[in-house]
Amino acid sequence: MLRSFIDVDPDSHFPIQNLPYGVFCRSDKSSPRIGVAIGDYVLDLAVVDEAGCFKTTPVAGKGVFNRPSLNAFIGLGHTAWQEVRSTIQKLLSADEATLRDNERLRAEALIPQKEIKLLMPVEIGDYTDFYASKEHASNVGTMFRGKENALMDNWLHLPVGYHGRASSVVLSGTEIRRPVGQSKPPHASQPIFGPSQQLDFELEIGWFVGPGNKLGEPITIAQAEQQIFGLVLVNDWSARDIQAWEYRPLGPFLSKSFATSISPWVVPLAALEPFRVDGPTQDPEPLPYLQQQNKGAFDIHLEAHLQGEGMSEAQRICTTNFRYMYWSMAQQTVHHTVAGCNLRSGDLLASGTISGPEKNSRGCLLELTWRGDDPIDLGSGQQRVWLEDGDQLTITGWCQGDGYRVGFGEVTGRILPPLVSDENI
Amino acid sequence: MLRSFIDVDPDSHFPIQNLPYGVFCRSDKSSPRIGVAIGDYVLDLAVVDEAGCFKTTPVAGKGVFNRPSLNAFIGLGHTAWQEVRSTIQKLLSADEATLRDNERLRAEALIPQKEIKLLMPVEIGDYTDFYASKEHASNVGTMFRGKENALMDNWLHLPVGYHGRASSVVLSGTEIRRPVGQSKPPHASQPIFGPSQQLDFELEIGWFVGPGNKLGEPITIAQAEQQIFGLVLVNDWSARDIQAWEYRPLGPFLSKSFATSISPWVVPLAALEPFRVDGPTQDPEPLPYLQQQNKGAFDIHLEAHLQGEGMSEAQRICTTNFRYMYWSMAQQTVHHTVAGCNLRSGDLLASGTISGPEKNSRGCLLELTWRGDDPIDLGSGQQRVWLEDGDQLTITGWCQGDGYRVGFGEVTGRILPPLVSDENI
Repeated sequence: MLRSFIDVDPDSHFPIQNLPYGVFCRSDKSSPRIGVAIGDYVLDLAVVDEAGCFKTTPVAGKGVFNRPSLNAFIGLGHTAWQEVRSTIQKLLSADEATLRDNERLRAEALIPQKEIKLLMPVEIGDYTDFYASKEHASNVGTMFRGKENALMDNWLHLPVGYHGRASSVVLSGTEIRRPVGQSKPPHASQPIFGPSQQLDFELEIGWFVGPGNKLGEPITIAQAEQQIFGLVLVNDWSARDIQAWEYRPLGPFLSKSFATSISPWVVPLAALEPFRVDGPTQDPEPLPYLQQQNKGAFDIHLEAHLQGEGMSEAQRICTTNFRYMYWSMAQQTVHHTVAGCNLRSGDLLASGTISGPEKNSRGCLLELTWRGDDPIDLGSGQQRVWLEDGDQLTITGWCQGDGYRVGFGEVTGRILPPLVSDENI
Repeated sequence: MLRSFIDVDPDSHFPIQNLPYGVFCRSDKSSPRIGVAIGDYVLDLAVVDEAGCFKTTPVAGKGVFNRPSLNAFIGLGHTAWQEVRSTIQKLLSADEATLRDNERLRAEALIPQKEIKLLMPVEIGDYTDFYASKEHASNVGTMFRGKENALMDNWLHLPVGYHGRASSVVLSGTEIRRPVGQSKPPHASQPIFGPSQQLDFELEIGWFVGPGNKLGEPITIAQAEQQIFGLVLVNDWSARDIQAWEYRPLGPFLSKSFATSISPWVVPLAALEPFRVDGPTQDPEPLPYLQQQNKGAFDIHLEAHLQGEGMSEAQRICTTNFRYMYWSMAQQTVHHTVAGCNLRSGDLLASGTISGPEKNSRGCLLELTWRGDDPIDLGSGQQRVWLEDGDQLTITGWCQGDGYRVGFGEVTGRILPPLVSDENI
């Protein structure tokens, strides 16, 4: 097994097999730059680049790591990503002297993670959210339209998706203000206005694409995975009461665009190769442009934890897996471009809520509590149907290797009370 | 009446009363910069700025006009826009000597429009499309759900909108590749794949917002118009067959994101003040956050023209007006932020298809031909239900003043045949 000269705990999310990219500032107020996580450290790629370690790779002389976002690096494409990754992996390996035995370079390039501040890793041009879990779509459909009409007739033929809001994608840790808006309770004659009473999370995985395609020139299924740079955890916060009232006929809008949180470390697709698995059987067979030849799913264990105010620790409320997804990342990416839409370096695509077959593998409160019929017990006498002010929701996930984990860290956010008081309504 | 020392035809879209902003390159390959249109000329604001003409305004020393987009200028806010506009208006007026009598400055700053190339005026962060014409929503609803269920029950309470795709917003003149994708003909048992057979345009008006609001801090109706920098014509190209199959339950996606065209000149909201009118009566009364105190509609005459291959000239197929819109720009802007969503400088919001009460005032082919039941006669034996390859669709619009027009120029695009041949399907 590949090992680093840096000690990494077997439970750490960041062994040498992972090497996720992030953007960070050092406490000495250096400008934002790009690093990779290794154990409890971050390797400053701007420093390593300046020391000439990338001089045989396609990034040489381009200064792509001394930047406040990953976009320039992502834009260089798959070959550059591969060469940089193998260079870093070699540099950090136990039997490579370049960094290991250079005390000055090590001191400059390896910084304890507790001394850095993580920033948004990517400048997101457009954000698209899919609806690619069959269990999620079926559960939601059953609740709203009955079991017989659970899946819309298009669902098994194409990955349903919609344009999300890029401006309100925020970094893990950002506090989330409870949204205010219109809703219409089931038996009300008129809509009401006020803070959302049905605030929910959505456990998702997102991926950053690049270099992208030109307008009118679709990506083929054979090219699709070379367009996937890396993955993050996504919490697509949702206000179900606002959503139910606004979404017809053009889809979710303000019920989603008040905030979407992402985890700070972007896990390269290459790090997930050992965890590639077959996805669910697709029946009916998809149209040719969606037929993927290789295994398209990934075995990523995922959990959601909720901690209310006054609770001494968070309670796990969901255990699920990315491998349950009916439509693969490649299929979603290809479908996005088939009519000609262009993707740009750093665009974010996300899977939609990830739900599995078990009751506790459902990735949002709407499903976990079955629209409120079945509250979650958090212990200490606390129950939840929807998120309350002060609640902290954390999603984490990892691939379990033999003696190591390729992990995503976490995406977390705490709910702040709404700004509007009852008097203003 | 205010007059410029530059001769401007009474039918010109660009008198001194207008002064729309655009981004352009000169044929001498200078870097992109910002100008305003005046008659057949463009005034190079980077040159005028360097000459010190803005030294008493908030843009002084900021270099906001020597840029490839309007974003930095838009970000300075309403007071800066006002002072710059009045400075330019004075500079170009017949009785002001500064520019009029400075031959060297005039030669450098005033360039015939035929010698420049117009570029995308704004770097668009997010694009949002609304559905704010009651006639449009009613017509579409009648076609798909019958007259009794024409308007969804939320429509009269809030401006329905959805997140669009920013990456595929293109400048007028860009040729539009016919999109390819999935659709399901009414009596087919399975979806089919191929070029869209129901390609449509949508006549819309869009506006660029700025400086915007912070996440979680909504814009109020009183502040809303100070957040509207200026307006453009928008053609939100639509593939109706792809749309009908994909849109449930999350809204339009690939049927829209293959292209959206905008006109190059951004008409300041200030130039439209003389044409402010009352919009339609709103019944029921909107919720307080949407109640606008001033007149929120604008009398902008709008036309769409279609020219097929082999036609000697374009034929007008629609005559409508922006004043028909049920929801005002201010209301749409406020609603967008009410749940906390942040708008950024240069975000594009658009009205949705603008339709009026008359048959020929409907702003898309779906309505004009009533889903194909009533083809449009283009003369010379040509008819249209949907757009054909080679068709050129042009939208134009203006406000008619007493002896002058405040115009938008045009947004135009020609349909290219699809890339996919029948063999590939």
